[in-house]
Amino acid sequence: MTTSGHILALSGGVGGAKLALGLSRILPSGQLTLVANTGDDFEYLGMRISPDIDSLLYALAGVNNQSTGWGRDSETWTFMSELERLGIDSWFRLGDRDLAVHVHRTNGLRAGRTLSEVTEDLTRKFGVGPNIVPMSDHRISTLLQTAEGCLPFQDYFVRRRCQPVVREILFENAAASRPSPAFLKALGHPQLSGIVICPSNPYLSIDPILSVPGVADAIRGSRVPVVAVTPIVQGRCIKGPTAKIMAELGIAVSPLSVAEHYGSLIDGFVLDILDEPLAEAVSALGITVEAADTIMKTLDDRQRLARRTMALLERLFETDRRVLSAVQE
Amino acid sequence: MTTSGHILALSGGVGGAKLALGLSRILPSGQLTLVANTGDDFEYLGMRISPDIDSLLYALAGVNNQSTGWGRDSETWTFMSELERLGIDSWFRLGDRDLAVHVHRTNGLRAGRTLSEVTEDLTRKFGVGPNIVPMSDHRISTLLQTAEGCLPFQDYFVRRRCQPVVREILFENAAASRPSPAFLKALGHPQLSGIVICPSNPYLSIDPILSVPGVADAIRGSRVPVVAVTPIVQGRCIKGPTAKIMAELGIAVSPLSVAEHYGSLIDGFVLDILDEPLAEAVSALGITVEAADTIMKTLDDRQRLARRTMALLERLFETDRRVLSAVQE
Repeated sequence: MTTSGHILALSGGVGGAKLALGLSRILPSGQLTLVANTGDDFEYLGMRISPDIDSLLYALAGVNNQSTGWGRDSETWTFMSELERLGIDSWFRLGDRDLAVHVHRTNGLRAGRTLSEVTEDLTRKFGVGPNIVPMSDHRISTLLQTAEGCLPFQDYFVRRRCQPVVREILFENAAASRPSPAFLKALGHPQLSGIVICPSNPYLSIDPILSVPGVADAIRGSRVPVVAVTPIVQGRCIKGPTAKIMAELGIAVSPLSVAEHYGSLIDGFVLDILDEPLAEAVSALGITVEAADTIMKTLDDRQRLARRTMALLERLFETDRRVLSAVQE
Repeated sequence: MTTSGHILALSGGVGGAKLALGLSRILPSGQLTLVANTGDDFEYLGMRISPDIDSLLYALAGVNNQSTGWGRDSETWTFMSELERLGIDSWFRLGDRDLAVHVHRTNGLRAGRTLSEVTEDLTRKFGVGPNIVPMSDHRISTLLQTAEGCLPFQDYFVRRRCQPVVREILFENAAASRPSPAFLKALGHPQLSGIVICPSNPYLSIDPILSVPGVADAIRGSRVPVVAVTPIVQGRCIKGPTAKIMAELGIAVSPLSVAEHYGSLIDGFVLDILDEPLAEAVSALGITVEAADTIMKTLDDRQRLARRTMALLERLFETDRRVLSAVQE
């Protein structure tokens, strides 16, 4: 039974955090490790901002802003309005409440603590049960080679509103990095029973995690099933610029492309029910398909999709066991 | 005429900033240099806080909080309430609007700019006419030797609410420091016509400035008159722990003690009208006395006291000229 084992989930920001919240609600605390993309991290006004870690932190603590889809609830904007009044760089919107995390994180890092240590401290302070861990304690920066030059992720995403045409995505400093200690521990966890790739942007949010040396091989070589949940429904992306970037990179905007992209890394794929006609094509890749409603509007939706994802993991786990028994007989 | 020359004023925080504002209103912009005590500066949550520079900045920009006497107007406290909720160190109160300055300053210092450069940038951003300059670009820390051990200034002042009994005041790192470039420039300004010591705490706010090597000698040896304005009225201090500290150090809580403390450094002393009976004793020190209403409640009060201070400087300047003429004849 996978639900009695440990689950490792890879996630980007808002989209992935929805499923992460669902998983955190149906799995016992302590049996879930959430690895966050840190390729979007950047320095702003001298502070270290880790957008995807914070999206996970806020979503799991139930303090995320439901109406904007990003940032904190009960937010105020006095700091930002003062920066604007003084003519200080204010292109990235930091709420006053949100600032508490950025100041505390930056202070911890400056004092010599690792991003893992600072993040663990924050999850405790926010009363979050599951481990939220950075993919690496090294700085890896997602860069977009665009028609208008090479742009760091936040410049592309926030300042330029994803307008420049993307030609290539690079993960600066990835080759010299290592997975964070808790990520490594989860990958080698003796009770590990499944790996979930959340419905995040495969190219911008999951690939940075896979770019950390050893991670893709460890997942591919894992004895436990790996399941990805589609971020694409009916040729569109629920959240963010995934569809636009896929088109610019010459990739068909389809869940099939996502399944192909993960390829041998995954054993199972959760497809949206609206895309069920594509199930056969995904299956032809040697990937087991589960069709589910992947659009998560409510907390119930998140838990339901988490259950369907876990069900697919269990199915794959049982199949493996049967195959193993057959081999041993 | 002193008002046609350049005025250098030394100031601590809130009390001194009142007279500084008065001076800034009656003197042409560009003819006033305000030197701020930075002995109270400290690191908090990884940010560099310069309380006296900010008190001057906010007072002169007209954006200080009139009701609390410290901090910013139109302030909100979301950042602080979030720190508290998370159980993060929150003993020093930083408003959301105030934070803009601390984050910007810290960012500038981390990028390698000096405190002088960062402060000049801030005065420009706040639209403040007079130069506000730190006493030094070196870190000098005011330490209080108390009955309960040695305490950094903010620990004593904010965290311990000035309760421990003070035995000695030390200025850590002063011996190795130098005055800031703009302070040096003002001391040697060819049009310098007077030096004002604002009604700040002599021991905690002015002495740190005088502890910077060369400063006391330059003021004492200056060819221009030096006038101090009393921070003590009728045995009490208008603002802060001056009276308490004087008592603990075995000093009579009297403007006479302040005049004696400055001694040969000053030529003139502005005494409160309520303390006029002490005028003779101050005069006996060889110091010219001007009695004025030194309690500044309104902007008018600030300007009136600034005018009285300038009048005393002019009187001393004219006397010097007459003495000089007599010597030359």
